[in-house]
Amino acid sequence: MLQQPLQIADVYAAAERIRNYAHRTPLLTCASLNERFAASVFLKCENLQKVGAFKFRGACNAVFGLSDEDAARGVIAHSSGNHAQALALAAKLRGIPAYVVMPSNAPEVKKAAVAGYGAQITFCEPTLEAREATQQKIIEQVGAVEIHPYDNRAVIAGQGTAALEMLQDVPDLDVIIAPVGGGGLLSGTALCAQEISQRVRVIGAEPVNADDAFRSLAAGQIIPSHQPKTIADGLLTSLGSLTFPIIQKRVEQIVTVEEETIVESMRFVWERTKLVIEPSAAVAIAVLWESKIQFRGLKIGIILSGGNVDLKRLPW
Amino acid sequence: MLQQPLQIADVYAAAERIRNYAHRTPLLTCASLNERFAASVFLKCENLQKVGAFKFRGACNAVFGLSDEDAARGVIAHSSGNHAQALALAAKLRGIPAYVVMPSNAPEVKKAAVAGYGAQITFCEPTLEAREATQQKIIEQVGAVEIHPYDNRAVIAGQGTAALEMLQDVPDLDVIIAPVGGGGLLSGTALCAQEISQRVRVIGAEPVNADDAFRSLAAGQIIPSHQPKTIADGLLTSLGSLTFPIIQKRVEQIVTVEEETIVESMRFVWERTKLVIEPSAAVAIAVLWESKIQFRGLKIGIILSGGNVDLKRLPW
Repeated sequence: MLQQPLQIADVYAAAERIRNYAHRTPLLTCASLNERFAASVFLKCENLQKVGAFKFRGACNAVFGLSDEDAARGVIAHSSGNHAQALALAAKLRGIPAYVVMPSNAPEVKKAAVAGYGAQITFCEPTLEAREATQQKIIEQVGAVEIHPYDNRAVIAGQGTAALEMLQDVPDLDVIIAPVGGGGLLSGTALCAQEISQRVRVIGAEPVNADDAFRSLAAGQIIPSHQPKTIADGLLTSLGSLTFPIIQKRVEQIVTVEEETIVESMRFVWERTKLVIEPSAAVAIAVLWESKIQFRGLKIGIILSGGNVDLKRLPW
Repeated sequence: MLQQPLQIADVYAAAERIRNYAHRTPLLTCASLNERFAASVFLKCENLQKVGAFKFRGACNAVFGLSDEDAARGVIAHSSGNHAQALALAAKLRGIPAYVVMPSNAPEVKKAAVAGYGAQITFCEPTLEAREATQQKIIEQVGAVEIHPYDNRAVIAGQGTAALEMLQDVPDLDVIIAPVGGGGLLSGTALCAQEISQRVRVIGAEPVNADDAFRSLAAGQIIPSHQPKTIADGLLTSLGSLTFPIIQKRVEQIVTVEEETIVESMRFVWERTKLVIEPSAAVAIAVLWESKIQFRGLKIGIILSGGNVDLKRLPW
C-alpha cells in the first residue's frame, strides 16, 4: 500500500504533539552578522533545543505518535550523536524503554548524555554494517520499534516544526538555509516552508568533503557518501529514500562549503552571538561566508541545528 | 542640591529610552539546571545583549538621556571591558564621539571590539590612578561627559531594565541573583525588583577573592577591594557611593563563591545551555552550586551578565 506523501498537516500535527515537550526556541538577530552580509539574518537557535539539537523535535514526534501498544515495546536507533540523545529523552518523557546502538568511538560527552537520559546503550564497531546488525539483534530480542534518525515520516514532520516557528515569527523570510546530512531537517524544512510561504527559497548547506546531497541532486538519484571526512560530524550520513524525493522536489539548491570556512564561521558565531554551536550548525553560516549566492538585502533564516561539542577539543 | 533617590520611574523611563536600541533578551530555562537544583531556574541572557553584556542597557540610557548640547561634546569612560564597548556602541548609535581609556593589558578581543565600534581609545598603565589621570586630561582637552561604569544614576536605572523584563515575563519569581562588582547591575536590579514585586528577594553574587561588597555590607560602609585576584574579571571593582546605599537598603545578602566553583559553573552552562558566558556571569550560577542558601522548589532568576571571553584562553 502506497502511503500518501507527507503534507503540511503532518507538520502541524507534529507541532501540536511536541508542544508540551520541546522548546519553542528563540529566533535571534545579531548586528555583526547583519552588517557583515548586508542582510537581515535570523538565527533559529536549535542549539538551545532540548538535548541541544533540532533532533529532539523529530524523535519526540515519532515517540509520541506511537500507539500505546507499540510504545510499550520501546524504541531503538543506531546513532553516534544527537538523534540518540533525542530518542532517549523522548522515550524517557513517555516512560518507555529506549535502546541505542552507538559506535564505540562516539564522543564521551555524547555517550554520557545518552546514558544520562536512561537509555540502554549497546556499543559496536564503528561501521554501518556493525550498527545495523547489532540493532537488528536487539529488535529480535525485545521487539523495540526502530525510529530511524531521518528516513522516517514522523521524524521528517517533526523537524519541519522549526521552520514552522520561524515563519510564524517572520512570515516574509526570503531564504531559509539548513544543513543537510541524512536530510531529515532539510526535507522537513522544505516541505513546511514551501507549503506556508509563496516567497521563501530553501537552500541546503553541506560540507564539500561530504557532498553526497549535492551530487545526488545533480545525478537525479541517491549517491551515497563514500568515507566523508569533515569536522561537521553530524552531516556524515547520506540521503534516504524518503528525504531525497522531498529535497529533489522542494529545495532550490545545495551549496557546498570548505572545512576552513566551517571553522571560521563557527568561531565567529561563538564570539559574536555568544551561542555555542556545533560544526554542523556552522555549515549553514558558512554558506553566507563563502558568498556563492547573492543574499544582499534579503531576510535570511538560518537553522543553527545544534550545540553539542566537546569543550575540551575545540578546532581553534 | 540633594537629588531625589532613584525610583522605579527612572527604570521605566530607561526601558522606554533604550527600547529601540537594546535587545529584549530571552529568559531561558534548562532542564539540567532545574533537575540539579530541584528548582525552576530562569536565565536572563544578557550575554545575548548588544555588545554581549548588560552594560549596554546602562550606557545606552546614559547616552540617550543627555541633552543635545552635552551629547555633542562626546562621552568618556575608563574601562577595561564591557562598559567600554557598551559606551562606544551607544555613542555610535547617537552619532557622537566616544573616548575610552583602557589599560594596556586589556584583552585583545575587547580592544578590538571597542575600536570596532568607532571609539577613540587611549591606552594607559593598568592602575586606577593612571586611568583617572588619563581620563581627566582628555576631559580637559575635549570637554567630553564622563559616563561612569556604575556610579551614575542613568547607568543604574538602565541596568535595572533587565530585572524589569524578567518580572514582566515571570511575575512570581522568588529570588533574583545578580553578580556584583561596582554594583550597577545589582543596585538597579534591587531597586526595580523591590518596587515591582512584594515577593522577590535579591541576592548578590561575588567571588570570595573579590569580596568587597560582602565586607562592605558587613561593615556598614564601603570597604574598597584590595588587589582582588579572580577569574571573574568583570567584578574587580569596588562599590560606589551611589550603588552602596541602594544595595545596603534593598539587597538581602551577598553570597561569596570560590574560584573553582566559578569555572565549574561556567563550563556546566556552556555544555548544557549552549550559552557562551563569561566568568563574571558564572558567579551567579555558582551561588546555586555552592548551595549556601536553600533554593529548593523556588523560582530563581539568574542574570547571565555577559558573554565576552577570549575563546583561545578558556579555563579548562
